[in-house]
Amino acid sequence: MKFIQSSKNPVVKQWKKLLIKKERDQSRTYIIEGFHLVEEALKQEDTVLEIISVEGIDLPNKWNVDSIPMTLVSEEVGKVLSDTETTQGVFAICKQKEDSANIENAKTLLLLDGLQDPGNIGTIIRTADAAGIDLVVLGKGTADPYNPKVLRSAQGSHFHLPIVRKDLTEVITLLKEKGVPVYGTTLENGVEYVTIQPKGSYALIVGNEGSGMSQEVLSLTDQNLYIPIYGKSESLNVAIAAGILLYYFKNGQ
Amino acid sequence: MKFIQSSKNPVVKQWKKLLIKKERDQSRTYIIEGFHLVEEALKQEDTVLEIISVEGIDLPNKWNVDSIPMTLVSEEVGKVLSDTETTQGVFAICKQKEDSANIENAKTLLLLDGLQDPGNIGTIIRTADAAGIDLVVLGKGTADPYNPKVLRSAQGSHFHLPIVRKDLTEVITLLKEKGVPVYGTTLENGVEYVTIQPKGSYALIVGNEGSGMSQEVLSLTDQNLYIPIYGKSESLNVAIAAGILLYYFKNGQ
Repeated sequence: MKFIQSSKNPVVKQWKKLLIKKERDQSRTYIIEGFHLVEEALKQEDTVLEIISVEGIDLPNKWNVDSIPMTLVSEEVGKVLSDTETTQGVFAICKQKEDSANIENAKTLLLLDGLQDPGNIGTIIRTADAAGIDLVVLGKGTADPYNPKVLRSAQGSHFHLPIVRKDLTEVITLLKEKGVPVYGTTLENGVEYVTIQPKGSYALIVGNEGSGMSQEVLSLTDQNLYIPIYGKSESLNVAIAAGILLYYFKNGQ
Repeated sequence: MKFIQSSKNPVVKQWKKLLIKKERDQSRTYIIEGFHLVEEALKQEDTVLEIISVEGIDLPNKWNVDSIPMTLVSEEVGKVLSDTETTQGVFAICKQKEDSANIENAKTLLLLDGLQDPGNIGTIIRTADAAGIDLVVLGKGTADPYNPKVLRSAQGSHFHLPIVRKDLTEVITLLKEKGVPVYGTTLENGVEYVTIQPKGSYALIVGNEGSGMSQEVLSLTDQNLYIPIYGKSESLNVAIAAGILLYYFKNGQ
């Protein structure tokens, strides 16, 4: 097994670049960190390209890693690669797998329009996974799904359901051709969500934390929904709103 | 108006201490930051003890602050007081107002058992506010509601509904005497949440991010609920779970 001591080693510099979106986009790869995420990635075929572990860290015997290149690194290198304050000392380089053909087959879709907070995006991906959603689409202006904070908040759900980046207007046009109802979310001018209950296929869209969905996308939906505020808060967190709607829809299916 | 230039000024040191829980507990005060939070605090009687603003920052004319002591500070002092990377330059020192007598009058309660993540706690308080919950109780082992991150995530909901810290076993005993049904949440050995629908009063408990509710508290509930996972994620984020349950309950009321 290879061992790398110095954080100035060119290979380390290459890995570290994957903390930056531009570099991830160019290489079509990303880096994940921690036992749980690496384990979930290993369950997927053709995903993990390389495993990196800090010396002294024991990898679980059950991990099927015989065919995967592995590098041992010093604690110093581990700290450089980590996006967290206390690293678990295990990382993997993974392949970005976006197959837009999935849109054709997905029955239930969640579309994100301009979401910015990585923690929200990760939590929403995790919630969509839990609610049994078939596909998550990240529209223009939504933060990168391979951002380390998104990956961490999603707790492995990236490996459970397909996540694609695509222009939402194109996706909505396709869905309309297929007769899939498309529901937007809005604080105003919508109908209360409990008045509708999709049976079978649907697409739900949630929008930016501050400004909500873009006018362009809102104008393309079949119906726009709101969640009533019974107290004095101005709004719900977008991930909470997504959770309420996805489980409400699921209960009616 | 007083002006403080140096971050070494003893008054600044006193304010800065309020970033630490022990100091907040002793003084029964806390510090909030940003226009939205200060504005929400000012709407409450007998809450804001003092306003601090960085020189050059204009306070909204509509703020009713004539009777409140105000101090102008340098940018340097603003940075010292801020818990964020980019401060808005406006702060308030507020009085902790916990009135446990509220428990007697609350019809709908949300109880937090051992929650640790300040972002989750704040988001849950905001969600409880939105769902029209009467009271939030933070049990032992739950992080401080006056932690700056909790305050920020709650987006002013601290000023919209009462939040008390109290031993949950005591609270549950009191609720049972009053005949209020108490629902726990668990990943196992519960009933699916959609099989129940409280009418009128209820208390809902959510637990620690990793370990869930404590066995002690779980054993005191009338019924324990779970939210089904339809995909491959192991669990839901606790704030998402709270949002799904609170709105489900609300819809049936």
